[in-house]
Amino acid sequence: MTGATRVVVLGGGFGGVYAALGLERLAVQGARIHVSLVSRENYFVFQPMLAEVVAGDVGILDTVSPLRQLLRHTEIFVREIEGVDLDRQVVVLGAGLTPRLQELPFDHLVLALGNVTDFRGIPGFPEHALPFKTLAHAVRIRNHVIHVLEQASVESDVELRRAMLTFVVAGGGFSGSEVTAALNDFLLRAIHDYPSIPRDELRVILVHSGERVLERELTSGLAAYATSALAEAGIEVVLSQRLVAASARSAVLSGGRRLDTYTLISTVPSSANPVVEQLGLPMLGGRVECDATTRVRNRSSVWAIGDCSLIPTPDGKPCPPTAQHAIRQSRTAASNIAACVRGAPLQRFAFTGLGKLSALGHRRAVAELPGGLRLAGAPAWLAWRALYWSKLPGASRKIRVAVSWLADLVLPPHPVELNLIAGTGATQAHYEPGEAVFEQGDIGDSLFMVLAGQLEVSQTNGGAEQVVSRLGPGQYFGEMALLGRHPRTATARAIAPLDLLVLPAADFLALAANLSEFRAGFEETARTRASADAARAAGSAPSAPG
Amino acid sequence: MTGATRVVVLGGGFGGVYAALGLERLAVQGARIHVSLVSRENYFVFQPMLAEVVAGDVGILDTVSPLRQLLRHTEIFVREIEGVDLDRQVVVLGAGLTPRLQELPFDHLVLALGNVTDFRGIPGFPEHALPFKTLAHAVRIRNHVIHVLEQASVESDVELRRAMLTFVVAGGGFSGSEVTAALNDFLLRAIHDYPSIPRDELRVILVHSGERVLERELTSGLAAYATSALAEAGIEVVLSQRLVAASARSAVLSGGRRLDTYTLISTVPSSANPVVEQLGLPMLGGRVECDATTRVRNRSSVWAIGDCSLIPTPDGKPCPPTAQHAIRQSRTAASNIAACVRGAPLQRFAFTGLGKLSALGHRRAVAELPGGLRLAGAPAWLAWRALYWSKLPGASRKIRVAVSWLADLVLPPHPVELNLIAGTGATQAHYEPGEAVFEQGDIGDSLFMVLAGQLEVSQTNGGAEQVVSRLGPGQYFGEMALLGRHPRTATARAIAPLDLLVLPAADFLALAANLSEFRAGFEETARTRASADAARAAGSAPSAPG
Repeated sequence: MTGATRVVVLGGGFGGVYAALGLERLAVQGARIHVSLVSRENYFVFQPMLAEVVAGDVGILDTVSPLRQLLRHTEIFVREIEGVDLDRQVVVLGAGLTPRLQELPFDHLVLALGNVTDFRGIPGFPEHALPFKTLAHAVRIRNHVIHVLEQASVESDVELRRAMLTFVVAGGGFSGSEVTAALNDFLLRAIHDYPSIPRDELRVILVHSGERVLERELTSGLAAYATSALAEAGIEVVLSQRLVAASARSAVLSGGRRLDTYTLISTVPSSANPVVEQLGLPMLGGRVECDATTRVRNRSSVWAIGDCSLIPTPDGKPCPPTAQHAIRQSRTAASNIAACVRGAPLQRFAFTGLGKLSALGHRRAVAELPGGLRLAGAPAWLAWRALYWSKLPGASRKIRVAVSWLADLVLPPHPVELNLIAGTGATQAHYEPGEAVFEQGDIGDSLFMVLAGQLEVSQTNGGAEQVVSRLGPGQYFGEMALLGRHPRTATARAIAPLDLLVLPAADFLALAANLSEFRAGFEETARTRASADAARAAGSAPSAPG
Repeated sequence: MTGATRVVVLGGGFGGVYAALGLERLAVQGARIHVSLVSRENYFVFQPMLAEVVAGDVGILDTVSPLRQLLRHTEIFVREIEGVDLDRQVVVLGAGLTPRLQELPFDHLVLALGNVTDFRGIPGFPEHALPFKTLAHAVRIRNHVIHVLEQASVESDVELRRAMLTFVVAGGGFSGSEVTAALNDFLLRAIHDYPSIPRDELRVILVHSGERVLERELTSGLAAYATSALAEAGIEVVLSQRLVAASARSAVLSGGRRLDTYTLISTVPSSANPVVEQLGLPMLGGRVECDATTRVRNRSSVWAIGDCSLIPTPDGKPCPPTAQHAIRQSRTAASNIAACVRGAPLQRFAFTGLGKLSALGHRRAVAELPGGLRLAGAPAWLAWRALYWSKLPGASRKIRVAVSWLADLVLPPHPVELNLIAGTGATQAHYEPGEAVFEQGDIGDSLFMVLAGQLEVSQTNGGAEQVVSRLGPGQYFGEMALLGRHPRTATARAIAPLDLLVLPAADFLALAANLSEFRAGFEETARTRASADAARAAGSAPSAPG
């Protein structure tokens, strides 16, 4: 369509998809608009049902629709976004199958990139907390929980097993409450397949900074109902506390208590999408400031909708970040862009919300519906399912979800750990003081480098434990077991909060085999440490084995 | 069960699961046996339906059953196997949630680990060919194919797009033929969602070393029928050739022809499972030699069944590696282990096969059934579905598969690229002579180290291309774009078959930020190369930028 106004929409969530849909419709009606959409995924996720994926009430792909089946007249780029140049009016796309640089020019840009869960600043969170925002997160949480059940079922150390069977969720807003309830329901059903797991060792803990869950989202009566409904379902609700640190095996509460756990799901805190943040647009609280037309303040051709935007409602307050608002904002943005193209006046966003719903597990929910109607318990749960089912895009999606709900009623749960990820490359890990990175005799499966903090290396020879060295930033350890392929020859334990870079054995050996400078350094260190070990066995000096 | 005979089964496929089931039954009938099973996955995959996962005829999890729901009286360890010590009679398990060393003592050991697809020895295959053996492989193939369709749909370079739309499968046995047919069916349906892709650019090529597909598996008449049925479905069947090399963007035939493709699926060749290979047992052609009782030759308490074993049939020939044989072998092994325990004589394996079936796409198949009955086309396809459906373990699985088949008839296909893998760490890549690793102006997303071969680095300044250096084993390149975060400043092209170690930007930057020796070397090189670039711009000497 030569000469058409080029609109590029960034993001494939509620805001982006409905904006593209609105623009497509206007184009069909005659507006000279060409629509492109850039999304990291080739599908749209029906976000409100993600907790059901964790629970297994619906199948992994039941809540997703291929973007191309929703958007028949939009050019779709399944790519990361490398950056946006607002002056040159181009979006720079990330690499596809080839690393070739590809730019997408635009006349109007619609930002619908949402926000991201941002764990920076809380020790151990970036490394060990599981976010819950995307389909990949939901699948990862489900797989992790099943993995933990498998390992707990063959763990004879009671203390370790109890830690494995403790599941902690941080954040009692909509998504935190829903994922906690879903997880609890799933565990109570799945446990029947694990007869060696003592059922009373199962703990699900929800940590919330307020005095009631959902207190910011609902009226105080419903928030109180929700809080007690979760407790009645067997969930331990810890109020007025936050999590301040985490490791692979613990979560630390603001009150100082440490929960032993291998599973920490966190829905907080969220911050601006990095692509949006780099644009230099006016922002407030991580959201792009817009006027009531959904146009970015002081910009003529940049629009923002959904969770990445701050749009005033008619009463002047900012819109809450919900799907229903994103959908209405996208309609306003689409018709205003078309109005710009033909030089017509712009509309103002005027939507005040339809109601609020939250599932609470055990077939209960809470709801505030239009006209002041409030529901709690089973009726609210039925309203939840009926409403969201009716909002699923397309008949095919509706059929698939209905069939899954039916199957879930009549068939046993299906705890399959879908193990698709072969290797994960270098990762980071955080340890709280006193926690062991590994113990003497363990399997040597990684090399570690100290990024921050301190650890102590000790050896037990003939019953007596002896500290052989302390290591700090810049030092590495664990190479001896990898180079020699034998069990760990010492114990490494954090003595201060410890951050490590972890290189899996396969990656380490590949680097060592191919990069001579890399290998030489490690071999030299391993030799020095081994001879120190030998000397010590004969009775002397310290080193840092592994 | 104190004093019970401890039987450890390794492997969760047809052989392992049915052996554990047989042993469980004997234990329920009074045999003093304790059964443990070690499997990498917590589920059993119904292998014959994996091609349907690629096609999307069934859902990702429809063909799998949780092991615990099949084996109610077996202790299940979801772990890798670190090794087996036959002298000490222990299995050493890989790390679980903790790296603690865990050993599993046994009185009898059942090896049911199958074989593995082994690409070593074919240049480029380990790096770029997609194996097709496990559920993870099937999901990965499906995701990759959808990814390629997405990228092809926005690719304007015709040559690149044609390469993206060429799909090559190596090996015309059962699994190769079935996956080719399934892939072809899927592409012909999915293409409707990609209107920008010219349908006539779609090519599916099956490369087979024999004169007809399935010639080793079926009678020559049916093999000829199968070969022409695939051709009629639009598949290019290349016979009497093998693939001898591959890169990320091409596959080289034994006749010398190079096929431009981004998708190479290979079902050949297979070799022994590494865990089995390390045991020092008598082996022939990658399989453990057993007598007709399924016991390993010259061993009293080690048994082998399924594809990892070589068991003679009553007529003295080795059993073919099929599911039906594995199931019958597992029954013989289970009852013989029980016979050993009570000191009774052992049975001999006596099963001659029930028939052979292969799906060919387009709702056609070929079948050789008992009594010499041969079927081809739609009747064989119905027999295929009826037979395998009846063999699915458990009513719940049967219902799920039936529902999926029904949904597949009435609902549109669902090309969703399930993107669960965040980063993949260091990988290797192979390039054939003339292929570019990257071109000047490309996005810089990785660092490369030369493992073998040679490449040429060239720069275009003011229209003229100039070779600035040649690099060989031990040298690295591409660091300049990563350290400076700008597009590639030169083109790197293989001038001999080239093997590279590829470190993604994120991993490189993490290592560079934390390992001072590592960073210093790269920075020094980058500085030298940058000043050489500057000198050259002013008119002089060579270097190796990136």
